[in-house]
Amino acid sequence: MAVEVVYRSSRDLERLFMDKAEADRYDKMLELAEALSEALQKAVPSLSEQQVEELGIFMAKNRDTFAKAFKNQPEALAELGAETAE
Amino acid sequence: MAVEVVYRSSRDLERLFMDKAEADRYDKMLELAEALSEALQKAVPSLSEQQVEELGIFMAKNRDTFAKAFKNQPEALAELGAETAE
Repeated sequence: MAVEVVYRSSRDLERLFMDKAEADRYDKMLELAEALSEALQKAVPSLSEQQVEELGIFMAKNRDTFAKAFKNQPEALAELGAETAE
Repeated sequence: MAVEVVYRSSRDLERLFMDKAEADRYDKMLELAEALSEALQKAVPSLSEQQVEELGIFMAKNRDTFAKAFKNQPEALAELGAETAE
């Protein structure tokens, strides 16, 4: 037994990482997801809290694809296939 | 009276433009909105057709802001303020 270093994002205390870079990536993903959820909730008030959360996480996890779509390649979104947000 | 040229997107036959470049921009916006709606509907099946349509149009209209957010500036989304999708 020994003491060891683990890392976590302050946005999700449950999830621990052995690797700092991985914890950083996870934190950035959650940061983007939260910002997206907030913006979409304001824009479409009929969305439930769970729906905006799922939308935010889904888009943040697929950030590179959405970045392409918003830049100039909407067809990039087709590659997302049918994986759901959960 | 005279015959004149007007332009429209094949995605929305109702809206006519005097300016071809403007019609092009509108068509591109609708193309992105449709691709977004489709991807989000697959990812979050509980969304209604109207909700995915509103989400797609809202994001496509604010394409530059979302492009920034997905690139590396989630804080850009804060500038969207409280305008709703309608």
